[in-house]
Amino acid sequence: MRETRKGMLLVISGPSGAGKGTLFKRLLAEDETMTFSVSYATRAPRPGEVDGKDYHFVSNEEFDRMVEKNGFLEYATVHANRYGTPVQPVLEAMEKGLNMVLDIDPQGALKVMESMPECVSVFILPPSYTELRRRLIGRNTETPEAVERRLGNAKGEIDQMNRYNYLVINDDVDVAYEQLKCIVTAEKQRSVRYFPIVEE
Amino acid sequence: MRETRKGMLLVISGPSGAGKGTLFKRLLAEDETMTFSVSYATRAPRPGEVDGKDYHFVSNEEFDRMVEKNGFLEYATVHANRYGTPVQPVLEAMEKGLNMVLDIDPQGALKVMESMPECVSVFILPPSYTELRRRLIGRNTETPEAVERRLGNAKGEIDQMNRYNYLVINDDVDVAYEQLKCIVTAEKQRSVRYFPIVEE
Repeated sequence: MRETRKGMLLVISGPSGAGKGTLFKRLLAEDETMTFSVSYATRAPRPGEVDGKDYHFVSNEEFDRMVEKNGFLEYATVHANRYGTPVQPVLEAMEKGLNMVLDIDPQGALKVMESMPECVSVFILPPSYTELRRRLIGRNTETPEAVERRLGNAKGEIDQMNRYNYLVINDDVDVAYEQLKCIVTAEKQRSVRYFPIVEE
Repeated sequence: MRETRKGMLLVISGPSGAGKGTLFKRLLAEDETMTFSVSYATRAPRPGEVDGKDYHFVSNEEFDRMVEKNGFLEYATVHANRYGTPVQPVLEAMEKGLNMVLDIDPQGALKVMESMPECVSVFILPPSYTELRRRLIGRNTETPEAVERRLGNAKGEIDQMNRYNYLVINDDVDVAYEQLKCIVTAEKQRSVRYFPIVEE
């Protein structure tokens, strides 16, 4: 059995607190065919975050220089901070037939989906707004005002959910992860990127 | 968490001997959201096959009457016998939001995919032609001439595999079944047929 595969660009998005980061990290840890690209951010690192690993933490000026040389697949301002996905690693992965997964806010995700419509997009939903609020407060990294701003953004983001290929409710994280894993398994079998050769 | 879903029409096809029937039966047995429709056939029942359960075994004349009243979603002649998928049960399932799975030969599958392009189509492949021949001979229900005819048909059918949404190699049946199950799980999460409501 010989076979070849095309690379897949997987976009995981959802409102803050839906749990997309957890699902993203677990997928990367368990699926060795998945690579990731480190985004750029102008915000300060949260406790435990490492520059060049979680994000490339850059100044506003450095970010501007990347924008000028068309270095981003998308970039956006979210909660007063700027985030960008560098274009080069995504193109390199696709060329090599590797799968790449992006953990990205909804503003950025919609832009990636426009510029790369062949990507596979998954929107992670919280089970309820009450639970979303509880999670955001539980982080202990957000001011009450930031929690309310994120909740307000979440409603607008959830209104756009039908623009994504797949929807996953993150109520029980193990159930949500199994669904995400199945989406990846299924998408690897798509005839547009899977080329088996049946031999004599 | 409230949610509604649209029904999915799943088409499982592949050459004779690829093992689509086994995968189809296991999916039906294990996934209680899946219903099936009994096809019509003009061939004689194989040992163990039950009329009205495996197929509606009908005469050529009865088959003609169904064709005349547009009672088939598709019908075709395969290996000198005629097979048809009745349209009514498929339409009824879709209306009720139920999932329906069809186990159908490639000629019929391509016709269903044309008349219902929103269906989910999966093509089951044998690992090699050598293995396909071994399986066809192992059935002990085919003459040597029938085995050669089926092998000849298989090549033409496999040439068309990129017209299906998904491709699954049936080498180890458990691996193939897991892939099929993931395709079903993933497709249930598609935003075109899954409508979750995030409540306050």
